[in-house]
Formats: sequence, structure tokens, C-alpha cells
Amino acid sequence: KSVKEVLFFPVSLSCTEGVLNPGVPCLCPLPHTDSDLHRLMRRLMEARRSLELCIFTFSSPPLARAVLLLHSRGVRVRVITDSDYMATVGSQIGALRKAGVEVRHNQSSGLMHHKFVLIDKTLVITGSMNWTMQAIQTNKENLLITDDKVLVSAYVKEFEELWNEYDPA
Amino acid sequence: KSVKEVLFFPVSLSCTEGVLNPGVPCLCPLPHTDSDLHRLMRRLMEARRSLELCIFTFSSPPLARAVLLLHSRGVRVRVITDSDYMATVGSQIGALRKAGVEVRHNQSSGLMHHKFVLIDKTLVITGSMNWTMQAIQTNKENLLITDDKVLVSAYVKEFEELWNEYDPA
Ligand SMILES: [Zn+2]
Ligand SMILES: [Zn+2]
Repeated sequence: KSVKEVLFFPVSLSCTEGVLNPGVPCLCPLPHTDSDLHRLMRRLMEARRSLELCIFTFSSPPLARAVLLLHSRGVRVRVITDSDYMATVGSQIGALRKAGVEVRHNQSSGLMHHKFVLIDKTLVITGSMNWTMQAIQTNKENLLITDDKVLVSAYVKEFEELWNEYDPA
Repeated sequence: KSVKEVLFFPVSLSCTEGVLNPGVPCLCPLPHTDSDLHRLMRRLMEARRSLELCIFTFSSPPLARAVLLLHSRGVRVRVITDSDYMATVGSQIGALRKAGVEVRHNQSSGLMHHKFVLIDKTLVITGSMNWTMQAIQTNKENLLITDDKVLVSAYVKEFEELWNEYDPA
């Protein structure tokens, strides 16, 4: 059965620990209601072999936790991001690098403005949303999720081209 | 046959008059080569009944020309945009309003950060790209185009909800 789904934001703040550790009760004071952020994170947590992130700005702590958990499980994580924003306050890029995640960024003028994700090279998530708490909790944003082979392969090609273009070596 | 296509940017500057007036030779000094901007504009020009734009920033002159041409042909054009950016230099929102295009914008805090388009409510174009010359000619950007009914209907619903939410009356 094919995957086609659209997520809309903003969502209210609620706890996402249950997505990372399903079945483990959480005692934190946040509400434990489901949202489109949970749906996004559950898609990410489906990754078994590879996760490619091509994200303009990445500062969301729950999304960073999901990515670091996948990395610790042996999923190959590769991140492409924008050079101007990776050094700003709250960016998670430093923490990902410190954990051993491969990160590359644009060198030239012009923004690396993509916001797409590839899961096991079989699912793409793309849209308007950067991985920031403001986007998730305040902005009007959309993410489209599909496993259509034609669409996914276009994004796989773009990722690999940028990965090579941004090779610092 | 179903539509599924991904456009990638940046593209080199080239003349787009041929999309607006097919078959009419253009004598301007720009190159007359095809690009993903032309592919985007050809999709827009397919609109026969309605065009809904839900775009964070809209300053691109060729895209404004396409929208104004559709409006003049009797296509119902509705625009949702972000209040902070509609008044900035180069914004096309004033020109669209002056021509009689219906425009609404967010009232609250948080950005109206969507960048999606509905064509005859049967095709959706969504992704990272704002309708600015910087995005088109300088940034890494993507737009996904699909006529999948499940996906399109999710965006139609979102547009109508925001259209009502942003009713100034
Ligand atoms: Zn909790
Ligand atoms: Zn020309």
C-alpha cells in the first residue's frame, strides 16, 4: 500500500518521548497528545538503513533526538544544511557532528533552502517546514510524504548531486 | 496519465515570454532556453477555472505576469500571503490587488510560511521555493507537482481553512 500523506503545522506543544521510546510511560509535565509532529517523527523512526536530511535550518531538540537515536542504532545519517545558519544559536548541527554524523554544507552564495528528508531511499518528506521550534509551533507549514518511486528518485538524485558538490575534500 | 514531477532550482536567467505568449517570437536580449521556471509557469498557465496561491513571499516579476494574465482571462485567482512580507520592496502583492486579485494574509504572530499552489483544484505544486528572483536564480530549491487526489484534497482543505481564518470581515 502506497504512502501519501500531508502534515500541517503549527501544532501545540506536547511530549514526543513516546515516539522515541514506544511503550515506556513518560512522567513529564507536558501533555501527551498526538500531533503531526509525532507523525513526522514516527516516519523518521522507520529508517532502518539510511536517513538523508537536506534542511536549511535545524534547531529543533526533539527532531535532533530522533536523528541521534537513529545514528546510535547504526542507521547511516547524512545531513546537508546551509552554511549561514548552521552556526547560529540553537542549531543542532554541532551536536550532530560531535556525535559523528556526516554533515556537509553549501560553499557558495545563495541559500541551501531545501527542506527534504529521505528515509531508506524509499520515502521522501518535502515541503515548507524548517526543523525549528518556531516552524513547528508557530508557523503555517506543510510537509508532503510519499513513497512514489518517480518522485523519491528525483530527490535521491538531487541529494547525491549536492553531497558531491559540497564535498570539502 | 497522472502528473508527478519535481522541479529543482536555481535556474539560469532566461526569457519566459514564450510561456505567456506561445508561438510569438521574442526579440529581447535574454537567452531563450527552457528551464524548470518555464516548466512551473507552463503548469500555472494550464489553469482554466481557478488558481490558489498560498505563498510566503511573492516578488518575482515573471510569475506575477503569469498570474495577472490568468486573472485577465477570467481564471479566479485567490492569494494567501504573509503580512510581514507583503509590504516589502519588490513585493508583487500590491500589483495583484490593484488588478483586482483577491488577497488575504495572516493576522497573528507566526509566519504564513507555506509555498503551495492549486491549479483548478486538481493539481498541487508544493515545496521550499518562495516566488522571488533570489530563490529562482540563486537558491537550492525544490517543487513537487502532483495531481494525486488524496494529496491535492489535503491542500484544498488547508487553503479553504486559511482563507476563512484570514477573512478580514
Ligand atoms: Zn512526556
Ligand atoms: Zn525574450
